[in-house]
Amino acid sequence: MEDSTRDGPTLMSVRDDLIRQEDTIVFSLIERAKYPRNCNVYSTSFLSEIGDVVESPSLIDLFVKESEDLHAKIGMYDNQAEVPFFPHDLPKPIFTPQNQAHLSFLNPVASASANVSKLIWKMYLEQLLPLLTQEGDDGNYASTLACDLLCLQALSKRIHYGKFVAEVKFRAAPDDYSFHIRNKNSDALMELLTFEKVENIVKARVENKGRLFGHNISLHDGEEDGYKVDPCLFSHLYGEWVIPYTKLVQVDYLLHRSLT
Amino acid sequence: MEDSTRDGPTLMSVRDDLIRQEDTIVFSLIERAKYPRNCNVYSTSFLSEIGDVVESPSLIDLFVKESEDLHAKIGMYDNQAEVPFFPHDLPKPIFTPQNQAHLSFLNPVASASANVSKLIWKMYLEQLLPLLTQEGDDGNYASTLACDLLCLQALSKRIHYGKFVAEVKFRAAPDDYSFHIRNKNSDALMELLTFEKVENIVKARVENKGRLFGHNISLHDGEEDGYKVDPCLFSHLYGEWVIPYTKLVQVDYLLHRSLT
Repeated sequence: MEDSTRDGPTLMSVRDDLIRQEDTIVFSLIERAKYPRNCNVYSTSFLSEIGDVVESPSLIDLFVKESEDLHAKIGMYDNQAEVPFFPHDLPKPIFTPQNQAHLSFLNPVASASANVSKLIWKMYLEQLLPLLTQEGDDGNYASTLACDLLCLQALSKRIHYGKFVAEVKFRAAPDDYSFHIRNKNSDALMELLTFEKVENIVKARVENKGRLFGHNISLHDGEEDGYKVDPCLFSHLYGEWVIPYTKLVQVDYLLHRSLT
Repeated sequence: MEDSTRDGPTLMSVRDDLIRQEDTIVFSLIERAKYPRNCNVYSTSFLSEIGDVVESPSLIDLFVKESEDLHAKIGMYDNQAEVPFFPHDLPKPIFTPQNQAHLSFLNPVASASANVSKLIWKMYLEQLLPLLTQEGDDGNYASTLACDLLCLQALSKRIHYGKFVAEVKFRAAPDDYSFHIRNKNSDALMELLTFEKVENIVKARVENKGRLFGHNISLHDGEEDGYKVDPCLFSHLYGEWVIPYTKLVQVDYLLHRSLT
């Protein structure tokens, strides 16, 4: 949001941010695909089975929670664009935020309401990972977890960016939205926010980024060039989850936005 | 190291790993370049100036140390390919390592000796960041730190991978190395490990990856296409630091390797 630091985000700066975030998502997923599924990381019985702890969160619960605690200490969640998966009992930042300009851009009630973290978590673990990774276990749990954290954070940031999209759209044309917000008409809002042509452009672009970033040039005789991850996975991810979840966030944000 | 899980790394698997790690380095640096310098993150006076704590490590010291503690708990440093910047007082892993195959590949004495973490840290903060980032402060310290951690870890992993390179090369041709190791002749070892033609291929390849991953397609009228980071920075990084540091690691590893 380099061009928006002073006056808050604009339609153009939000669009640029969304496009840049595509790179982060595509690359994070390609990095995760280096490792096999490593199911133990997601199992709530793994830690209790090996008897090292009494309670049994999964490794991913434990790692993401502790990572978010650490990120909270350095002020990550002072930024309205960052949404934690485990928001309870986050520690306070060890210094006061330096950049106050963004803090009040979103409507706080609407921003708190528009949260699809649980949907993202479930989608990533149950639907995306089986498509992204090969079955198997190579024991590289720490690297797997580090990659999972980056993927989850990148997806969450991108999807919850719908709040900024909704806010800038509302400010640009409040009359278009106010009537439907007053009538709590989520279908009409959804329709206002849906541009199939634009969605198709986005899907084609992320697929293309998957092709560009994930191109595997063969180094050994007899092997063909290929992709680290099937590029279609990225358009599928956007079409099935990222775009629909972003629109859920936008509609929920608008429905809870004060009209004054 | 997918094809090396059973028998330990091979010349071919190490080469593949190194090439794959280039992607991680190039992409991490491009991500860091999204944010300006944000000097406060590296200042040992920042936290004490704002009066929130008594002692004054820099934010980056504090964040990398705590991140490594967390990574140690999930077993990151059971993997000989991962080298922490703050190795003292690391917590024990909360579970026993699942993948024992790699644990004994490197010679432990040589592996402990061949450590250039302090060089990498200093190079990253003092030389690379000024080339990579624009001057300025946008207050996004948490995101900046998260990116710095990824860059530092990717560089450290790549450079310390020299230990694996040295070990596989030694095993493939012990007679070529033993004489110089016995005579502690580091110059002769350095010469044995230097292939200028290969180094030039590597530099050209990372520059090309910088061009591919960092290509900025203009979205606004009147703007020209460009690169998120000057692609030459990547060949410079490899030529000035990554390749020379890797060779330091290799020579130091070999000099401390037992010949039995």
